Amino acid sequence: MITANNSPLRRQVAELVVVRASGHASDHQRRYPRWEQSNKKLQRLLSDGVGGVILLGGTTTELISRCKNLRQWAQAPLLICADVEEGVGQRFEGGTWLVPPLALGQLFQKEPERAVALAERYGRCTGQQAKSCGLNWVLAPVCDINNNPANPVINVRAWGEDPQTVAELICAFERGLCSAGILGCAKHFPGHGDTETDSHLELPIVGHNQERLNNEELVPFRAAIASGIESVMTAHLLIQCLDQQRPATLSAAVLKHLLRDELNFQGLIVTDALVMESISRSHGSGEAAVMAFEAGADLILMPEDADEAIDAICAAITSGRIGLPQLNAARQRRHLALEKVNNNSQATNTLQVSNEKTSELESEADRILARELVEASLQVRHPKSIQSVDSGINLLRVDSLLPCPMLAADAPALTLPSSSNFQPLICHNLGLSPWQPNPKHPLALERLGDGSILLQLFLRGNPFKGRKDASEPWTEAVQQLQRDSRLAGLIVYGSPYLWEQLQQVLDADIPAAYSPGQMPEAQLQALNALLATNEPQPATGPTKFNEFTD
Amino acid sequence: MITANNSPLRRQVAELVVVRASGHASDHQRRYPRWEQSNKKLQRLLSDGVGGVILLGGTTTELISRCKNLRQWAQAPLLICADVEEGVGQRFEGGTWLVPPLALGQLFQKEPERAVALAERYGRCTGQQAKSCGLNWVLAPVCDINNNPANPVINVRAWGEDPQTVAELICAFERGLCSAGILGCAKHFPGHGDTETDSHLELPIVGHNQERLNNEELVPFRAAIASGIESVMTAHLLIQCLDQQRPATLSAAVLKHLLRDELNFQGLIVTDALVMESISRSHGSGEAAVMAFEAGADLILMPEDADEAIDAICAAITSGRIGLPQLNAARQRRHLALEKVNNNSQATNTLQVSNEKTSELESEADRILARELVEASLQVRHPKSIQSVDSGINLLRVDSLLPCPMLAADAPALTLPSSSNFQPLICHNLGLSPWQPNPKHPLALERLGDGSILLQLFLRGNPFKGRKDASEPWTEAVQQLQRDSRLAGLIVYGSPYLWEQLQQVLDADIPAAYSPGQMPEAQLQALNALLATNEPQPATGPTKFNEFTD
Repeated sequence: MITANNSPLRRQVAELVVVRASGHASDHQRRYPRWEQSNKKLQRLLSDGVGGVILLGGTTTELISRCKNLRQWAQAPLLICADVEEGVGQRFEGGTWLVPPLALGQLFQKEPERAVALAERYGRCTGQQAKSCGLNWVLAPVCDINNNPANPVINVRAWGEDPQTVAELICAFERGLCSAGILGCAKHFPGHGDTETDSHLELPIVGHNQERLNNEELVPFRAAIASGIESVMTAHLLIQCLDQQRPATLSAAVLKHLLRDELNFQGLIVTDALVMESISRSHGSGEAAVMAFEAGADLILMPEDADEAIDAICAAITSGRIGLPQLNAARQRRHLALEKVNNNSQATNTLQVSNEKTSELESEADRILARELVEASLQVRHPKSIQSVDSGINLLRVDSLLPCPMLAADAPALTLPSSSNFQPLICHNLGLSPWQPNPKHPLALERLGDGSILLQLFLRGNPFKGRKDASEPWTEAVQQLQRDSRLAGLIVYGSPYLWEQLQQVLDADIPAAYSPGQMPEAQLQALNALLATNEPQPATGPTKFNEFTD
Repeated sequence: MITANNSPLRRQVAELVVVRASGHASDHQRRYPRWEQSNKKLQRLLSDGVGGVILLGGTTTELISRCKNLRQWAQAPLLICADVEEGVGQRFEGGTWLVPPLALGQLFQKEPERAVALAERYGRCTGQQAKSCGLNWVLAPVCDINNNPANPVINVRAWGEDPQTVAELICAFERGLCSAGILGCAKHFPGHGDTETDSHLELPIVGHNQERLNNEELVPFRAAIASGIESVMTAHLLIQCLDQQRPATLSAAVLKHLLRDELNFQGLIVTDALVMESISRSHGSGEAAVMAFEAGADLILMPEDADEAIDAICAAITSGRIGLPQLNAARQRRHLALEKVNNNSQATNTLQVSNEKTSELESEADRILARELVEASLQVRHPKSIQSVDSGINLLRVDSLLPCPMLAADAPALTLPSSSNFQPLICHNLGLSPWQPNPKHPLALERLGDGSILLQLFLRGNPFKGRKDASEPWTEAVQQLQRDSRLAGLIVYGSPYLWEQLQQVLDADIPAAYSPGQMPEAQLQALNALLATNEPQPATGPTKFNEFTD
């Protein structure tokens, strides 16, 4: 190590690093022990002055406890953030889980005012719950425009497919966040919508010229900056017209010249996670951090090795490669941001006390919002037309079962079809394959058994999958089931592009539904809409005694 | 309702009822909303004087928070219990999860002193962690003797297969619990070992005579009583030689005459859950509670409707069917039990504060114990002999994936075989079937793909399954794989009976291992023992970046 752990310079630099930790209390509960600091290391880093933590995993009760502990360990104002783009419940069980933003982008085309009002409530709900849990910084809104349906990483996370829609909705979201007294973050600058490469895995290259960027990708960022967004997160993208060599995260042309000078952004610039392979493959922790800081970033998010990042920046300052004024400016921006949210610490405490009293984080208004968002984005063909059968199959396809937060044992997607005698059969990434090598008959039907099939596809085009799902022949499978008169119904939860594609081959008489959301509320509404059972059913879970005290 | 909610009599009766609640904070996080009280109802019941809560689900951080809330709501000393028979980690993520007790029953045959010492540490670890979380009553030890390998509900939960082993080990466990300052519970009186029926689903009938019961089933209970166990839980069993009509839970012959008078038990008698179908099928909440109380039970566990149970007992007292002295005696026993554990409330607070400081519930001693228990019960054939392959299959069979606490995405059972190129394929209760209707070739190999197969069976003979797993032809499947020279290795996690059965057909050269435990530590040790990789690997989880901030 170049400087002593507690030299004043090192502490000042450490303030600008944001490390990742699990939302769980114990080390052995970590899901990603390689990336998530152990408690011992976390305590040491915080006592060395590290100024930010990004949390993932666990429940909201754990998050509350975790944030308290982190603040005790830090003994200085701390930025605590999470990627709660779709409500706190997206990342922390117990919070409200909202439909993905693209749902509102679609609603905006028909009912712009309603969409804007919902987006503001979306931001307020997310911000209030995040704050009640102890976070002070929400890493949202996504300001990317999903102008490329094949985008593997943005997709339904975007607020729309065109600049104006996204700009309107993210400003509304930001107003909601702001009213809750929590910091927001516009990402991923200068726009990650038109890529077909997952930057978690490799560096995407964007070939658009400056005029196109100006008229398209930059529009929502300009709006976010005008509306007072407190931070902007950089993208790991090579934008050739701006910088031939360096990805945006490491490019002074993008961060200093475009974002600071041209767009006049005065808030915090934070890198996307430096461990992402599009960066870490080419640059070590130290050099990546120095390059990002040199390029104009204020905060260094998730360097693979936090000490290395801090030491390398210290060395760059000591050697004169980076000037002290830049360090001071970054610290000052962080200080101002923290001041803004720490004013409201009294309010936070009050909220937390009231939570402890009722045990409920989610308010009645939050529940109504979650329900209304599902209603507003649900599409249904032939309502109430799936009849009960003697013996049918409820065929579900999910991205992953380990874990599968939308599919607990009492999920409506399992229990409601069961009450019409469609028995669940779950296909997932680690399960037996339902496919056979026959292009026109891709489903190996003898593996599924007899009876008509209700098909529920939970596919939203997640990152990290390398578009594997896209190679599954669901279009041909739907055609095959129709030819055999075995398709009782179809529900797509997630990707609107998959839904559009399947609608093109769907026979006119097949009951079908689409929801951008995958959460239990979306399942409940879609199935209540399609199943011809007498009454809409609440999600009461198992009705037979089946797990108890032994 | 017969009496006003707050009549003194009703409050006194309410003290004796134990209701079930989720360990999670919010109503919408409940896994079994039909059985778990909503927070609103729970608050009302506690304010009406209900004196006990049994918790299930969630993490230890949530449990700590939950217990605090419950005590605030009750504003009177409260019994808070959980079925943490195999360590707090069995029911609450974040706690230590220990191998099932039968592992020590087997060790006792070879090394009795070591087994006794381990059982005492087992009790201490469980008791200390339970107490740190806010519980004051552990519903263990199981005192049943697993003298029937076909028992669907006791099985590896028992401490042995003969009376002396069980008696020695449960007393050691109880000493450990006691040293932690927490109440224990001997169950299920008068012995649930020799049944082939799952009492969660229907009422088992036991035909043994009194002499046999005296020399076998009652031995561990006598030992538990002699060692000062604070409570005994009744079994939902019809013991014909004791009572021709009524199950033990509702039988005065069993509770008053045998347990109180003959065995001279002075502590709390608590029913097993009255919602279990072996009781609830024949008796409503009110009548079942009255019958149990009349028969000699002090505490009524999980009546389907707590108010109905309280009102019915009140009515029985008012009408003279039950005498006031019995009510007072039950309350006095509860009072004495609570006094015993509330003495140590100072210690609890200290522990909780130290936990908050480190965030770790599990001590180094707990970790060592968990590891040592796995080591002491691991069986291995042909260590270090499974070579890396070009392309193999890691075929896992688990009871259930929703949820599957031993199989997170970073579980050693998935990651370690992957590093030898055995790719995971998970069979589970809701997945596609690997079976075809061919008795000698039961596995449909074309569904699995090519390559040699490492078979990992997570089957422990759980309750609620109606012995469905037993009907899967794993013996024939192992023979089939051996004939085809495709079996690279076999690991059984759970049932020793399945392991014995498979060993009988296993070729002499096949690497194989058995652990009674299913937790990650058991996976780690079994796979490190079998895989011919250079170094034992710690459970570090995914080594590639694959879920992060977006």
